[in-house]
Amino acid sequence: MTTTTLAKRIHNFGAGPAALPLPVLERVQAELLDYAGTGMSVLEMSHRSAAFEGIIQKAEDDLRALAGLGSDHVVLFLQGGASLQFSMLPANLRAASASADYVVTGHWAKAAVKEAEKSGRARVAGTTEATGFDRVPAAGELQLDPQAAYLHFTSNNTIYGTQWATAPEPPKGVPLVCDMSSDALSRPLDIARYGLVYAGAQKNLGPAGVTLVVMRRELLERVPAGLPAVLDYKLMAENRSLYNTPPCFAIYVTGLVLAWLREQGGLAAAGERNAAKAALVYEAIDGSDAFYRGHAQPGSRSAMNVTFRLEDAAAEKAFLADAQAEGLDGLKGHRSVGGVRASLYNACPRESAAALAGFMGEFRRRRG
Amino acid sequence: MTTTTLAKRIHNFGAGPAALPLPVLERVQAELLDYAGTGMSVLEMSHRSAAFEGIIQKAEDDLRALAGLGSDHVVLFLQGGASLQFSMLPANLRAASASADYVVTGHWAKAAVKEAEKSGRARVAGTTEATGFDRVPAAGELQLDPQAAYLHFTSNNTIYGTQWATAPEPPKGVPLVCDMSSDALSRPLDIARYGLVYAGAQKNLGPAGVTLVVMRRELLERVPAGLPAVLDYKLMAENRSLYNTPPCFAIYVTGLVLAWLREQGGLAAAGERNAAKAALVYEAIDGSDAFYRGHAQPGSRSAMNVTFRLEDAAAEKAFLADAQAEGLDGLKGHRSVGGVRASLYNACPRESAAALAGFMGEFRRRRG
Repeated sequence: MTTTTLAKRIHNFGAGPAALPLPVLERVQAELLDYAGTGMSVLEMSHRSAAFEGIIQKAEDDLRALAGLGSDHVVLFLQGGASLQFSMLPANLRAASASADYVVTGHWAKAAVKEAEKSGRARVAGTTEATGFDRVPAAGELQLDPQAAYLHFTSNNTIYGTQWATAPEPPKGVPLVCDMSSDALSRPLDIARYGLVYAGAQKNLGPAGVTLVVMRRELLERVPAGLPAVLDYKLMAENRSLYNTPPCFAIYVTGLVLAWLREQGGLAAAGERNAAKAALVYEAIDGSDAFYRGHAQPGSRSAMNVTFRLEDAAAEKAFLADAQAEGLDGLKGHRSVGGVRASLYNACPRESAAALAGFMGEFRRRRG
Repeated sequence: MTTTTLAKRIHNFGAGPAALPLPVLERVQAELLDYAGTGMSVLEMSHRSAAFEGIIQKAEDDLRALAGLGSDHVVLFLQGGASLQFSMLPANLRAASASADYVVTGHWAKAAVKEAEKSGRARVAGTTEATGFDRVPAAGELQLDPQAAYLHFTSNNTIYGTQWATAPEPPKGVPLVCDMSSDALSRPLDIARYGLVYAGAQKNLGPAGVTLVVMRRELLERVPAGLPAVLDYKLMAENRSLYNTPPCFAIYVTGLVLAWLREQGGLAAAGERNAAKAALVYEAIDGSDAFYRGHAQPGSRSAMNVTFRLEDAAAEKAFLADAQAEGLDGLKGHRSVGGVRASLYNACPRESAAALAGFMGEFRRRRG
C-alpha cells in the first residue's frame, strides 16, 4: 500500500501506550475496511461472530504457545487496566479473613497496596522506598507471611527503571501474583512459578484497552459468590471473556502482536533482542564518565525502561529538545521523578535503541 | 486510497458491535501509521501526549455540542461496558440506607437489577415481562418510590425491539438514570430530564471498549469514599477520564463518529434519518399480510432494532440464509428470542435499510 511508504515514522520511546510492530500496524491498516473477506471492519464486528471467535481464539492460542500454558491455566481478556486488577485481585482471591502480602518497589506497587487495603488486609512484605526505589529487594530482605492469600510483586517498575532478574520465592502454598504490565512476554517466563499474572497490554503486548490475566485454574475455587459480574474471574472464565462485549479491536491488535512475537522466535529470542537493545543504552550511560547517571542500581536495571539523569534540569531539557528534533520521541521521565526515560519494549526496534545510543554520545561530545 | 474502492463492504445489521460510518473507517485507515504528523499511530500513542489530549478533548467537545451539555454536566470515558455500569451506578449514587427503582423492559434491565441487588436494595417499579417484553410500560403502570436513590430505565431494548418514545417521569427530586447503550445520540436528547445517562459505544457511537457516562455534576457529591479507584465516578471526573490509561483508540474512533454526527446535522437530523430507515422496514412488515410478524407492539416500536418472526423456524432459517447470500448480514435474532432482528443504528446507511426492505418483499413473493 502506498500509504505505508509515505508515512513518516519516528523513534517512539514512550512508556506506554508504546510502539507497536510496524508489520502489525500495516496489517491492521490493510484489513481496516474488510477483515478477511467479511465485508466489515473488526471495529464493527459482532463479538459473537465466527470471525471474531476466530480472532480471540487465535490470540489465546498464541499466548498459550508463547507462555507455555496448559489446560491448568485460564486466560482472560479483560478491561480496566492493571489499575482495575489492583481491586479485582483481592476481591477474587483474598478471603474476608485473610491478608495478602505485597512487595513495594514503586508507584504502581504502592497503588496496588492502596486498592487492596480498601477492601481488607494487605501487608507490605518488603520495600525499597527508602532509597528512591532504585532497586528491587534481595530475597533476604523480604518478610513473608506463610498464611498470606498471595504474594504480589511488580516485575518491572516503569517509572524507576528497575526489574526483578528472578521472581521472589513465596512461602509454600502461597500463590505468587505478578503485575507484569511493563515486561510481560519480554523474556522467557517460568509460568509454573506463578498463581496469577496480569498485564495491561499497552506496553509490550498491544494497544491500550485490554488487560491480560493468566491464572491457575484451581484459584477460581476461591472466587466468592456475589461479586459484580464483570469483576468476577470465575464468570469471565466460564464465558471465555465473552460474558459481555469485550474490547474487540484491542484484542485483535494484541493477537497480531502475539503472532508477530511467535514469528520472531518466541520469548527466548525476544529476551535476547531486548537485552541487546538495553545494553546499547546502558553502555552509553556507563561510558559517559558520569555525564549520564543511571537511576537504577546495576543489579536491578530494567531491560524495558532505562532511566537516567543529566547534570541538572537545564541539561535534561536541552537533551530532550535536541532528541525530539532528531525524531527520538517520548524520552521525558515520569513527572514524579523527572530526568530521561527510554522505554524499549518488545516492539521498539533495535535501530531505535542504536539511534538513541548514538545521539547520547553525540550530545555528550557537543556539550563536553 | 486504492484500498477503499477495492474493499467489499456488506450491509451490516449487527446488533452491536455494529456498523461504523465508512468515512470514519477510511479516515482511521489513512491515519493508521502516522496520526496528524506525529509519526506514530493512535494505537501506540501516550495518553499523556498533546496529540491524545487533543483527541479526547475534541471527542468531549463534540459530545457536548451534540447533546447540549453545559458546565453542570460531567462527561466520562470509561471501560467495562454497560455491564460494569450496572455495578458502578449503585456503588456511586445509592447510599447504603437507600433503595433504587428500576423499570424492567428486557434482558439488560433485569441484569441491571441483579447487579444492583448484589450490593444493596433495588426495587422493580414496573415490568412488561408478562407479555414477553413486547412493549414498554405506560406512565400509569409505574409504581415509583419517592425516596428512591434514582429511577433507572433502559431507553431501547435491543433484544425485543422496543423503545421508549418519551422517558418516564421520576418523582420530584429523584434523578432519572438511563442505560442508552442502544439508542444514545440516535435522536434529540432532552438532557435536562436526566441525572445520569450511560452507553457502551459499540452500537451508535463507536467501537467496543469504551463506555460513555454523562452525569449532572452535583451527583458527584453522593460518591462515597473508599470505592475502587477505577470505579469511582468522582476520581474519574477529577482526572478527566485519565486517572489510568484509557482505551485510547476506542475514544479516538468514537470521537470521529461524534464529529461525523455533527457534520450530518446533529441529533435532529439523525433522528429523522433513523425514523425513515425504520419506517422502510416496518412498512415491509405491515404490508406483508402477516407474512412477517413484528414482535414489538406498534406504540413501543424501536427505530434502532426491528424484530420480527416468520411463519416458523424453517422459514426464518431460509430467510436468513437467502439474506446472507445477498450481502445482508447480522440479521439473526438474539439467541434468547430467535427470529429476525435488523439493527439500524446511526451508521447504518439508508441504502442498507432499503436493501433489506426490498429483499423482504422479494423473499415474500418467492415464498408466497
